[in-house]
Formats: sequence, structure tokens, C-alpha cells
Amino acid sequence: MKAAVVKITGKVFSPEGRDRLPGVVSELKQALDEGYRLAIVVGGGPIARQYQDLGRRLRLNNAVLDILGIEVTRLNAALMASALGWEASLPVPRSFDEIVRWWARGSVVVTGGLQPGQSTNAVAAEIAELVGAEVLVNATNVDGVYDSDPTKNPNARLLKRLTISDLERILAEAPAVPGRYDLMDPVALRIVRRSRLRVAFVNVFRPGSIIAAIRGDTSVGSWLVWE
Amino acid sequence: MKAAVVKITGKVFSPEGRDRLPGVVSELKQALDEGYRLAIVVGGGPIARQYQDLGRRLRLNNAVLDILGIEVTRLNAALMASALGWEASLPVPRSFDEIVRWWARGSVVVTGGLQPGQSTNAVAAEIAELVGAEVLVNATNVDGVYDSDPTKNPNARLLKRLTISDLERILAEAPAVPGRYDLMDPVALRIVRRSRLRVAFVNVFRPGSIIAAIRGDTSVGSWLVWE
Amino acid sequence: MKAAVVKITGKVFSPEGRDRLPGVVSELKQALDEGYRLAIVVGGGPIARQYQDLGRRLRLNNAVLDILGIEVTRLNAALMASALGWEASLPVPRSFDEIVRWWARGSVVVTGGLQPGQSTNAVAAEIAELVGAEVLVNATNVDGVYDSDPTKNPNARLLKRLTISDLERILAEAPAVPGRYDLMDPVALRIVRRSRLRVAFVNVFRPGSIIAAIRGDTSVGSWLVWE
Amino acid sequence: MKAAVVKITGKVFSPEGRDRLPGVVSELKQALDEGYRLAIVVGGGPIARQYQDLGRRLRLNNAVLDILGIEVTRLNAALMASALGWEASLPVPRSFDEIVRWWARGSVVVTGGLQPGQSTNAVAAEIAELVGAEVLVNATNVDGVYDSDPTKNPNARLLKRLTISDLERILAEAPAVPGRYDLMDPVALRIVRRSRLRVAFVNVFRPGSIIAAIRGDTSVGSWLVWE
Amino acid sequence: MKAAVVKITGKVFSPEGRDRLPGVVSELKQALDEGYRLAIVVGGGPIARQYQDLGRRLRLNNAVLDILGIEVTRLNAALMASALGWEASLPVPRSFDEIVRWWARGSVVVTGGLQPGQSTNAVAAEIAELVGAEVLVNATNVDGVYDSDPTKNPNARLLKRLTISDLERILAEAPAVPGRYDLMDPVALRIVRRSRLRVAFVNVFRPGSIIAAIRGDTSVGSWLVWE
Amino acid sequence: MKAAVVKITGKVFSPEGRDRLPGVVSELKQALDEGYRLAIVVGGGPIARQYQDLGRRLRLNNAVLDILGIEVTRLNAALMASALGWEASLPVPRSFDEIVRWWARGSVVVTGGLQPGQSTNAVAAEIAELVGAEVLVNATNVDGVYDSDPTKNPNARLLKRLTISDLERILAEAPAVPGRYDLMDPVALRIVRRSRLRVAFVNVFRPGSIIAAIRGDTSVGSWLVWE
Repeated sequence: MKAAVVKITGKVFSPEGRDRLPGVVSELKQALDEGYRLAIVVGGGPIARQYQDLGRRLRLNNAVLDILGIEVTRLNAALMASALGWEASLPVPRSFDEIVRWWARGSVVVTGGLQPGQSTNAVAAEIAELVGAEVLVNATNVDGVYDSDPTKNPNARLLKRLTISDLERILAEAPAVPGRYDLMDPVALRIVRRSRLRVAFVNVFRPGSIIAAIRGDTSVGSWLVWE
Repeated sequence: MKAAVVKITGKVFSPEGRDRLPGVVSELKQALDEGYRLAIVVGGGPIARQYQDLGRRLRLNNAVLDILGIEVTRLNAALMASALGWEASLPVPRSFDEIVRWWARGSVVVTGGLQPGQSTNAVAAEIAELVGAEVLVNATNVDGVYDSDPTKNPNARLLKRLTISDLERILAEAPAVPGRYDLMDPVALRIVRRSRLRVAFVNVFRPGSIIAAIRGDTSVGSWLVWE
Repeated sequence: MKAAVVKITGKVFSPEGRDRLPGVVSELKQALDEGYRLAIVVGGGPIARQYQDLGRRLRLNNAVLDILGIEVTRLNAALMASALGWEASLPVPRSFDEIVRWWARGSVVVTGGLQPGQSTNAVAAEIAELVGAEVLVNATNVDGVYDSDPTKNPNARLLKRLTISDLERILAEAPAVPGRYDLMDPVALRIVRRSRLRVAFVNVFRPGSIIAAIRGDTSVGSWLVWE
Repeated sequence: MKAAVVKITGKVFSPEGRDRLPGVVSELKQALDEGYRLAIVVGGGPIARQYQDLGRRLRLNNAVLDILGIEVTRLNAALMASALGWEASLPVPRSFDEIVRWWARGSVVVTGGLQPGQSTNAVAAEIAELVGAEVLVNATNVDGVYDSDPTKNPNARLLKRLTISDLERILAEAPAVPGRYDLMDPVALRIVRRSRLRVAFVNVFRPGSIIAAIRGDTSVGSWLVWE
Repeated sequence: MKAAVVKITGKVFSPEGRDRLPGVVSELKQALDEGYRLAIVVGGGPIARQYQDLGRRLRLNNAVLDILGIEVTRLNAALMASALGWEASLPVPRSFDEIVRWWARGSVVVTGGLQPGQSTNAVAAEIAELVGAEVLVNATNVDGVYDSDPTKNPNARLLKRLTISDLERILAEAPAVPGRYDLMDPVALRIVRRSRLRVAFVNVFRPGSIIAAIRGDTSVGSWLVWE
Repeated sequence: MKAAVVKITGKVFSPEGRDRLPGVVSELKQALDEGYRLAIVVGGGPIARQYQDLGRRLRLNNAVLDILGIEVTRLNAALMASALGWEASLPVPRSFDEIVRWWARGSVVVTGGLQPGQSTNAVAAEIAELVGAEVLVNATNVDGVYDSDPTKNPNARLLKRLTISDLERILAEAPAVPGRYDLMDPVALRIVRRSRLRVAFVNVFRPGSIIAAIRGDTSVGSWLVWE
């Protein structure tokens, strides 16, 4: 059975983005109906930042702020898992041990972050490597990976295909751009490289992009390729 | 050592109410410094309703909507526990077993809801009964218990003292008033009655009311009295 | 697949009632063979009261006495789960999280009480709502719901059909009757009402009544109907 | 701080034996007040056998019957822990990992059996070895170890002191005597021997015997001595 | 479905024995393919002794040394479970409760030791009794059970068939022979006897012996027979 | 109370390095006696690599190989925790949740790795940030940080003080050097930078270096300084 790991930005759980949520759920259900095994990792989005702001006012340290953000990713995961029905992991797994246990039992793993200092992208990459996923789908709010920052450079070009060297160069150039963190953090990058994972970057707000990426349709988004 | 259980409305974690949050934390820390053992139960507030609305759009059933609300109470509890520091129960207890375990180990228990169909008031009453609390403080956004609905009746009178019969009558008359659910649900009422718990109803938005109620200062809010 | 939740009185685990136990197990196995998914919630019965008496002699408080009663319901649940075989949840789930996890994995959930101040009826209603059960079967030691107390009034009439208003009225009139607590507590009532659950009240000591109720045969016991 | 492990027969939780229970609790509290660290292991007694009989009627296998007996020891342990108050381990530990965790946190460990095929005596010996207990107190319903079966031989002599060889010989001769199993099983014996544990056998129904044994008063019961 | 429990010596995980490991994994996979349900219990072997030596230098007590050995058995079990793939129990179960839970969910249970003072043979026998295994396979580094110590007596004869009395006599005569502990400890022996388990003793280093024993081929190793 | 986090290389648990182990334990106990709160994170060392080699022969993927390595770090942590006595976290925490729980309860946290794709250095940095440690001590088998690879360049100079920029440059230049991974991985580096942690790099094989670093004695090893 083919397995796919889908990382979904927390923005689809926020008031502005949530009109897209039912569509995302439908695409994931469609993939399950087509026989794919799925692990879904969701981000925190604006609600996470709201709680972190509150934490900052209470003078909590960076690790605790990360933990609060992680708790919001788990809240979002609980909503997603509930929407997917009884095949999904509920209550949401809170450790790598629990993720392993749910996958071993044949469930759809739905989870959020796990530890301070590490993004949900890293969690998604770890799971993709563990289960031997056909594809790691990174669904953000942009159409894929650009050769320069599209919010600054109107001529930025979307890369339909990119190599790991391309990706490393782009990430290295963009550390100061907020939101790029979302694309892939160093842990995720190292895992992708060492196990040569196939990665697709798609826009969660374009209907059909998630199911397309799961099916391996390389006409959507940006794809990391290996020679 | 004297023990107190404090139920705090989720409104203090919402954007509108949160300016009060640092003050609430200070009062709780003050109580700890004065030697009280505390269990703190927090509600979900507007964020809970936000997630429940989202769940409704995804056609989730009532039990699942309750669970989503409970997950938000736990998120709020994580923030509160983090603010109180290492004496508090982190990660937030998710079952009665875990609440018992944390209390047995001498920690400040900070928790949210536990089960569908049951309010955080019920959880607070259960803990108060279990640990033999001196007082169960119910901190909402009104000044206490009124003889009629204060939002409708400008002549509604605040009851400084009330008996269990008064309380039962008022709750029986008010089932249709949203927000009254917050005051005390049937499970909480039964526990309060059978173990003759001392209960104080105070306004969390009045600085000083929480620490006053913990100290047993009956000049603030409404107090349930037993002959 | 059709799901049913069955609440069984603890009396079938006591010395006086236990001759009926093998028959109850057979009916439940029969339902499983016919393809129903089941959750089974068992009460404490006389052994629970025996331990609570012992606790009272040791001057334990009401919450602790409830916890002791709950531990007996779990003991009864362990026996029931063992009798049903490897499809059933063992060890017995001790929290709502664990109940959710077992159901998600396709097992027969067998559980007892969960928290002080709450009956096993409430637990059964919560599960029925969560899993969208076709029917909530309440198997006690009387034939169903009567229009007045059958132990006092020889002319009490068994209600084959009753509305939620009938039920609320009967429960409101009967608070002082020991054993009525067993019928349905306020939490259970609220859940039944808000989600319009279909409920059957049957006599566990009448062979065939449990399997009949699971199958939806309304000729046995009393049935709560919704227009 | 001196540590002691006390194994208490389940008979003190049964209807016939329970008048002694408050006294046992008092002696254990007294020991705690005197500064001893305690681990308490309780047996199942008649209620365990009652559930095992029920299990036999349902044709459950020996391992399951053992598990049912173990669940009753845990029920008894829950009662004992509740009576000892918040210093004791609640909920009752269900694995060796949990026992270790409670002891590490400074609590009074109160537990029952752990696994099929193994007595509560073995659990007590394992804990005594682990924590380096000064004494392992085995509190049964006889006055100590006799040179022959006192229920058959009116001239059976109580051994105030015995060596490990004496004990092994007596246990080897008595396999067919029901109740002797209670004294010490092969696992317990091996642990006692390899770590040269100091063991006292006392009669739980003689007031004062438990506290005396904990204090090391060798005038009560039988004591295993090492040269 | 037929169930088998296989106890495998830790020697196949040590540098000297590990060339055999892939073959062992293949035979177990073959058995799964043929439709057997399996529980696999692995020993600690030389690495366990290495850690125990280290513990002795740090003056740790016997219970702690046993625990260190158990942690190594779990490490070996993690490797074995990983090799068997997603049908196996990962993370490795650490208590009898967890073993029960994994088996109930249909997984291949792979585990190590559980408690100080008890061998992995005892764990294997407990599981075999619980699940009603057709056969308990004890795979060590000798060809079976001999009528005297084969390392001392060149004329020692392999017993193709033996009764429980034969086994008890041989074990009783051999307490001082290191390695014999591996054959069967007193807990295992008691369980085997009381539930009349069918036991095969085979040499893990003879290719084909494990799958043969699982299939019930009595031409390999020694078999415990019951009249 | 001052807190310190100490990361110790797994080499001190291997046959070649273990003569140093009792000394390391003594220094840590000394620090506890002096009133420091400690969290200790241990690596896997040669035993980890031994199991990973075995896993490679069984064709296990990178994530599983990492998990096997992590299980060895936990084994080493179990040994270390046992040596430190009852103040230390046993059983070894397996998730960030458990680490938080142990610290909250006042124990010495002793742990290993947590997740594939992440080093034990990252775990140590996360804990240091969370608990607000005075110092993060990284105890490897070299004397500190050099300006170039000391194994290749005989003129490599030990840096007694270095800035975060120095460290980043050195780590960036050394990706291909096995063993440097041990110094600090990208997750650790990011945490150290964002929370401006004070870090000491010392040689675990130089007696006295660990206690010195905990005390803040900057004459040993290399220290990361912040203006």
C-alpha cells in the first residue's frame, strides 16, 4: 500500500483560512478511499501566535512559548482527526512513541508538533522516513518554491523541479524571511537529504492540489527530484 | 495546610479579557506564597466556541464538539500552568487518575474539562470534594449570584449569602439563559450538596476578588452557606 | 456498521445475580456475531457497596467512596471483557481518552465508571453520543420505566413508549427512591435530550431482552421515542 | 531513612477479617510517623476467589483467572492507599515501572499483584530488594512459620528464628497445603536468598504485630536470620 | 487461528551469534505468512551481562542489575520488532498490561523481560497460557533437553520426548549449571504444569528449527508431552 | 536554585571508556550535594553503533536505525540514573512530556535521545532552555572546541572562549568530520542562539572537568560567551 505524509499549514484553521478546511478534509478522505495510507501533520497558524503573544506578556521563555504553539497544533490536529472519522488517531499522539504505535495499528496518524526548537516540518519528514512514504507533501499558502522571495521580487520564478542543492541554497539565503521557516527547517532538510525523500510543495488554498500531490501528479507545485 | 479549588472562566484567555490574566496569575501566586494548596480549573471561553463553530461546519456531533471545547480548556490550562511555574502540573492532566496523581505528589493541579456532557464546574466540584477544600471559588464575569437575571432585570439583587435551596431554585429558573450553565451544572450541584461544600462566586475581573475568596473573605461576591 | 451501547447493572456480578451472567455474555456475543459494534458499560452492584461500607468505616470522603465504587465497576468490566474474548478492551479503559482510543481501533469497549459524582449511565450516554449509536440499552433489574414506583404502587403501569418529557417528569418525581439513580442521572439525561438518543430500558434478568433491544425489537421493555 | 516492605493478606479486606482493618491502617500510619519509608503489598483474599469462581464458570483460562485475582488485589490496594492518605500511591501502580516511579518520588507505595503465575509475595520481595529494605514483613493469618502444619499437627512448633535452609525445607514439604502458597513462592524465595533479605512472618490479626516487625522487634512472629 | 509463543536466547543479538539473526527473522516471517499468530520473547545475552558488570562496578543491587538486564532484552526486542515490520509491537511493551493490549489488537507481540527476579522464560510461559498457544517454543543454543549435562558428560543423551516429571527432575539436579537457568525457571515450570502447555526445546542456531517447532514438527528438538 | 544541564558522550559506557564512569557519577553526585539541580542527557556511543550495524544488515531504514540508537541512549541513561540513586528519573523518560513531568516534580532528569533525525545535543539544549539552566555542559572526548580539526591539524588551537559566530563558522566548516555531529547539531545551535545559552565544552575523560563546568569555572574547556 502506498503511503503519503501531508504537512498542512495551520492557516487553514484560522478565521481567515478556514473556508478551505472542508475541501482539505474531502481531499484527504478521497486519498483514503483510493487506498493511500496517510500521516497528516498540522501546523499552529495564527491561534498559535495568539497564545504565544499571551505567553510573552506573562514573560514565559522560548521553550515554553514553543510548547504553547505545539499545544495549538495538537488542537488543530484534534479537529482534523475528528473530521476524518474513526480511522484517525484520537486522542492526538503527543510523542514519537505514540505516532509509531498508531501507525503500527493501521490508523491514519494525525499529529502536530512534538518538541520545542523543532518545526512540524521536521515531524513530517521524520514520519515520512520512518514509514517509507512515496511522497512528503508540504502544503503551505504559496504555490511552491521560488528562486527568490516572491513577496519582494515580482519576477520571482516558481521552480517546478528542484534539486536538494537548489533547496539548500534557497533556504540558506532566506533565513531572515518570516514564513520561510515554514518551508523546511534544518532537521527536515537533513532527513530529506539522507533518505532521498520525494517532496512536493503545494498551495493548500488551491483546490485539488493535495490529492494531486498524493497521487504523484507533478504538474502541481514544486517537486524535489533526485537523479 | 488549607486547600482551595478555583474555577476560572475561559474569558480571561480571550483577546477581550486577557488584560486581566497577569493579575489573576499574581493573585494565585500570592495564595501559594501564603501557604494554600491550590487546584485550578479553567474554562474554554471564546476560543472554545470558535473551534466548536468550525467543528459544526464539518458536521461533527455534540460529543466531538464537547471534546474540542475540552481541548481548548487544556490549552488554556497549559498557559496558566506555565505562568505559575514548576510547582504546577505540566503537561496538563487529561483524566481524573492524573489529577489524583498530581495532587498526591504535592503539585498545584491546573486542569480543564475531562469529558463530554460535563462542565468544568463539575470537575472543580469533584476535586474540591476529593481534597477536602476549604472553599470552591467560582470566578466568572459577574459579581456573584443574583435573585433574577441581571442582564434582563435592572433591579436584580446580588445575594451576598445564599443557601443550597436558593441556588437550586435560581438554577432551575434559569436553564434557558446562556452563561448560567457557567455558574453550576447538575453534577457540580449534586456534589456541593452531598458534601456541603463551601462555595464562593466572584467576579474574576475585579482585582483582588480571587485572593480574597481563597482567604475566606466573605465581603466579596456571593457565598453559599450551610446552617 | 450499526453500533449499540449497553449499560448493564452490577447486580449480575453479585452472588445473587450471577447465574444470569453466562446468558448475558452469550447475548452480547450473539450481537457481535450479527455484526453489531458494541460498547458495554457495567455497574458496581453489591460488591461496590461492600467496599464503600468499608471505606465509610475508615472515614473516607464521598469522592473517595465514589472512586472505590468505580474501581469495582472496573473489576466487573475486566471479568466481562475477559468473557467476551480478545475483541474486547483489556485492560479496562480508565479515562475517556482510552475509551476513544479503543473504539477507534475497532475493539468492543468494555468499561465501568470514570469519575466521582457521575453514574455509569452518564458514561454510557456519552459513548452512545460519541459513536452515534443506534440505541442505548439500559439493562437493569426491572422491566422498564413505570408511571409510578412499582415497589409501592401495585397498579404502577409499565410504559412501553415514553417521551423525553415523560422521562424527565418521572425522574424528577423519584429522586428519593433508591435504585432510580440507576435509571438515568442528570448528565445522561442532558446528553440523551440534546442528541435525541434512542434509549431502551430492559430487564437484564429476562433472557433474550438484551439481544432483542440491540436488534431494535421494541416489543421488549420501555423505549424512549422522538417525534 | 529506614525502609520496610509489608505484605498483608487479603483476608483483612473480607467481611470476616475486616474488623481488623482500621487497626492495620493505624499501625502503618504510626510507622510513617516514626519516619519509616514503606511499601505495602496487599493480597486478594476471599473476594479474589469469588471473582475467580465466577471466571471459572465462564470457562476462562488460568492466566485470566490470575489476572482477575490481581485486579482484586488492586481494589484492596486502592482502599488501603485511600485510608493512608495523600502520601500513598493513587491510582494504584499496575506495573513495576510505576512502582519504581512512585518510590522515586518519595511516596508510600501501595500495590497488589502484577502478573499471572506470580504471587504478591514475589512482588513484595522484589520491592524489598530494589529499595534495600531493612525488613520484609509478611503479615498472614498465622503466628509465623511452624516446623509442621499446625492445622494438622497439634504439636507443631512455632519457629521464632529460622535459616533460609529451614524455610526451603518447610516450603518444599508443604506444596499441597493450601494457604502455604501465601507464605512465600519460589520467586520470592530466590530473591530473599540471593540478596539475603531479613524477613519477619507475623500474624496480621494480632494487634501491634505489624508495627513491632517494622521496628525490628524480634519478639513477635518468626524471623529469617542470616549468619 | 493457531498461536505460538517463541522464546529466543539473547545470544543471537551478540557479536558472535548474530550471523544467525537474519535467518531467525525469516523463519518468523514465514510462520506469519503461514497464518500463525506469534508472540516472541527475547533474552538479553552477552550485552545484558556487559551492562550488569558495569552496574556491579557501580555497586548497584541485584534488583537494579536485573532491571538493566531487562532493558537490554527490550533493546533486542526493539531490533526484532523492527525487523518483523509494522505488524509487530513497537515501542516494545514494558508491562503485562501492554502485552495484553497489543495481543488484543492483533499485533505480533515482541517483548523482553518484565520484572526483577523473573526470567524471560517465565514471561513466555505466561503469554502462552494467556493466549492459549498451541506450542511454547524455547529456542536456546543447545539441541534440546539432555538427561545429564552435555558439556560435562560426553554420553549425555538428548531426550526427544520428556514428561513434566522428567523436566522437573532435570531442572532440580541442575541448579548450579549456568545456562540451565535459561531452560526454564520455577515460575515458567509452574505455569507449564498447571495449564499443561506443550513445549518444544530447539536450537536456534540450527536453521529451520524454529519454523519446524511452530508447525508442530516433533522431529526437531525435545518435546514436553502430556498423557 | 541553580540548574545545569550536562550532555555526556556515550563513550563512557563502552568497554574502552567505562573506567571513567564511576568518576563521572561522583562528580554529578558532588554537584547535587552542592545544591545544583541537574538534567543529564547521555549519548549512545559504540553500543549504539553496534546495534545500528545489526539493523543495517537487516535492511532497516534510517529512521529505524536512529530509533535503535536512541534505545541504546536510554539504556545508558537507565544505568546512569540507577547509579545516581532515587533522586533520578527512573524509568527513563521517553518523551518531552515525561521530561517536563520529572523536572516539575523536582527529580534529577536523566534521559537519552527522543526522536529520529535529532541528536542528544538537541535534547540537552531544549531542556537547558526550558528550565533556564545557568550552563549547558557538553562533555565529549576532546578538550573543547578547536579552530580547526585537531585530528588532522597538529597546530589546531583550543578556543578557551568563543562567540556564537565562531561556533557557527566552525560547525559549518566541519560537516564531513565524523564526531563533530557530537559537538552540536542545527537544532541545538538554533536554541542556543535564540535564548543566548551559556555553553561549556569539556573533556569527560579529564577528571574534575564536569563538576568544574557546572560550578562555572571557565578555566576548563571552551566556553561560549555572549557580549
